[in-house]
Amino acid sequence: MDTPRYTDLVQSLPANVPFVGPEEQERARGAPFAARLGANENIFGPSPSAIAAMRAEAENVWKYGDPTSHDLRAALADAMGVATGNILVGEGIDGLLGNLVRLLIGPGDAVVTSDGAYPTFNYHVTGFGGVLHKVPYRDDHEDLAALMTRAHEVGAKLIYLANPDNPMGTWHQGTDIVAALDQLPEGCLLLLDEAYVEFAPEGTAAPVAGNDPSVIRMRTFSKAYGMAGARIGYAIGAPDLIRSFDKIRNHFGMNRMAQVGALAALNDTAWLADIQAKVAVARNTIARIAAENSLVALPSATNFVAVDCGRDGDFARAVLAALVARGVFVRMPFVAPQDRCIRISCGRPGDLEVLADALPPALAEARG
Amino acid sequence: MDTPRYTDLVQSLPANVPFVGPEEQERARGAPFAARLGANENIFGPSPSAIAAMRAEAENVWKYGDPTSHDLRAALADAMGVATGNILVGEGIDGLLGNLVRLLIGPGDAVVTSDGAYPTFNYHVTGFGGVLHKVPYRDDHEDLAALMTRAHEVGAKLIYLANPDNPMGTWHQGTDIVAALDQLPEGCLLLLDEAYVEFAPEGTAAPVAGNDPSVIRMRTFSKAYGMAGARIGYAIGAPDLIRSFDKIRNHFGMNRMAQVGALAALNDTAWLADIQAKVAVARNTIARIAAENSLVALPSATNFVAVDCGRDGDFARAVLAALVARGVFVRMPFVAPQDRCIRISCGRPGDLEVLADALPPALAEARG
Repeated sequence: MDTPRYTDLVQSLPANVPFVGPEEQERARGAPFAARLGANENIFGPSPSAIAAMRAEAENVWKYGDPTSHDLRAALADAMGVATGNILVGEGIDGLLGNLVRLLIGPGDAVVTSDGAYPTFNYHVTGFGGVLHKVPYRDDHEDLAALMTRAHEVGAKLIYLANPDNPMGTWHQGTDIVAALDQLPEGCLLLLDEAYVEFAPEGTAAPVAGNDPSVIRMRTFSKAYGMAGARIGYAIGAPDLIRSFDKIRNHFGMNRMAQVGALAALNDTAWLADIQAKVAVARNTIARIAAENSLVALPSATNFVAVDCGRDGDFARAVLAALVARGVFVRMPFVAPQDRCIRISCGRPGDLEVLADALPPALAEARG
Repeated sequence: MDTPRYTDLVQSLPANVPFVGPEEQERARGAPFAARLGANENIFGPSPSAIAAMRAEAENVWKYGDPTSHDLRAALADAMGVATGNILVGEGIDGLLGNLVRLLIGPGDAVVTSDGAYPTFNYHVTGFGGVLHKVPYRDDHEDLAALMTRAHEVGAKLIYLANPDNPMGTWHQGTDIVAALDQLPEGCLLLLDEAYVEFAPEGTAAPVAGNDPSVIRMRTFSKAYGMAGARIGYAIGAPDLIRSFDKIRNHFGMNRMAQVGALAALNDTAWLADIQAKVAVARNTIARIAAENSLVALPSATNFVAVDCGRDGDFARAVLAALVARGVFVRMPFVAPQDRCIRISCGRPGDLEVLADALPPALAEARG
């Protein structure tokens, strides 16, 4: 008998990892990237008041964080116009996704998502034995109607929808999502990933009632608030669903510095507005760089832009590899026909100059 | 059909929480604690170089942490005399425990632990449907032989052993644990929780071979390194077992500030030695305060002391409540006969003066 004895489910799981980190790529290539534009991080950084709050808290890190994240949850509830009982704080959306999947999905349970949507969600579903049913994008948008139809067909317990979408940057009106809830099968939960919603036009956030038991929304301090490395996000949902996480979550899992930093970041609305403006400028710059190279940038409601390389996935992968070889960290969608694109995160002017310099020779190399 | 549809396992789980945090108790009592001596936190704090590293990293928190924790793992491997492939960094021992249980334990699988040992481990086992088999303490020590015997009887996949023990503070010689491995059933993994081992006498750490597939050790920066609120710990085990975590763990789950802080803390061996000395003094002070109140302090190899209140659990709970009412945050073992004790974490001289002042009236109140 081998030691240890893994569960049958674990033995069946692939050893693959959703994403390789840029540091590992840097070690492999033996040099740092000149521009870090691949992970949709917010290179403009967190609010100075968030940095100050985290620095001040460093000496208190001998204390465990408050397992209820009381102060932050109260502030988030105020900001969202819901009750504290509608809010759960967790270790980023990735951590919240894992716990939500664990609550609902066991071996054989059906889950619906878009083919090419967030791989880390799929990783969690597979990790708990769920069966993924994927519907294609429609015109580079997640296809609301098709997601609902497939959920009916397969008896799904959970639908994943990112709005705005990653990796394409496209979006739906929030009211269209609420309208689509009429088509949500009974007993099916809509997981609405709003990680990028602060970058989107007004009206993108879905006006879901806080106590609606058919939807859970997830948001994060990793993107607009520039705190990806702090690992803090939150879910908004019906109180029963929010409370159910207490059965399984790592109660003392929150970093204290992340808790105080997030609270300070949330209160610095001027900084957020400045970030939103800088990201809008960067999106335009990326579109201009694309156009200068005869490529088409897709409209984006996020802090990244999908740039259509104009041919198939092999060509886009060649462009990507040539950019990486020139010190530009970027990633791309995994699934055709979206894999004709590369995905470029917004950067500061200097970062985008690196991109502008690297793209013409990268394209020339990819064209052979 | 209700929405959402939880798994049968989740529906069966109790909604209880392993520990209530001191902040929640403070909000309930409407006043802060005068002495925070209940969670075995290291009130002496982290190394100044760890604080400095975390502060410096705060402005870089827009980047995700390195999912491989490469630099920290390399340093830990050096320090432990093992290979990097023997080391896994995770979100504290609590997070590592959850993932280890998920790898091994499914509904009905047998797990052996001591009755009254770490509740958060039990929480994870129950949370994945495992069946806990508990053996009593022997003379306030976890009973190595009984754990092994029970594991044989029930066909356990996993044994939990904390050395030193929490909540009693007692310990075994590391060589005795290695000798007991001869009795470990085939196909059973020994989980050796060494959270407090840096406070223990030389010879307490078990000299387990790094590649031994029958043992996984867990350590943390929460205790001796004073970084409980940073959420960072590590496991040492055979490479196959360490790699298997990659199938399920939250790859981008580590806080960047925690990663750099832990590395700095590990390198500050002088600070660690100073903490060890201060904790030894505090243990003696707690023992003296106990003796002044005609109570007996148990020998401890940790940063806390179990103080025998001399009667039954009801009496000890009354003492505990009377201390909490006087602003002293303490906790106690949950299970008889260990629940005759209260558990007092080491503190600075001022913290222990608060304890010294509160204990006589608390005892008087408990004696009615």
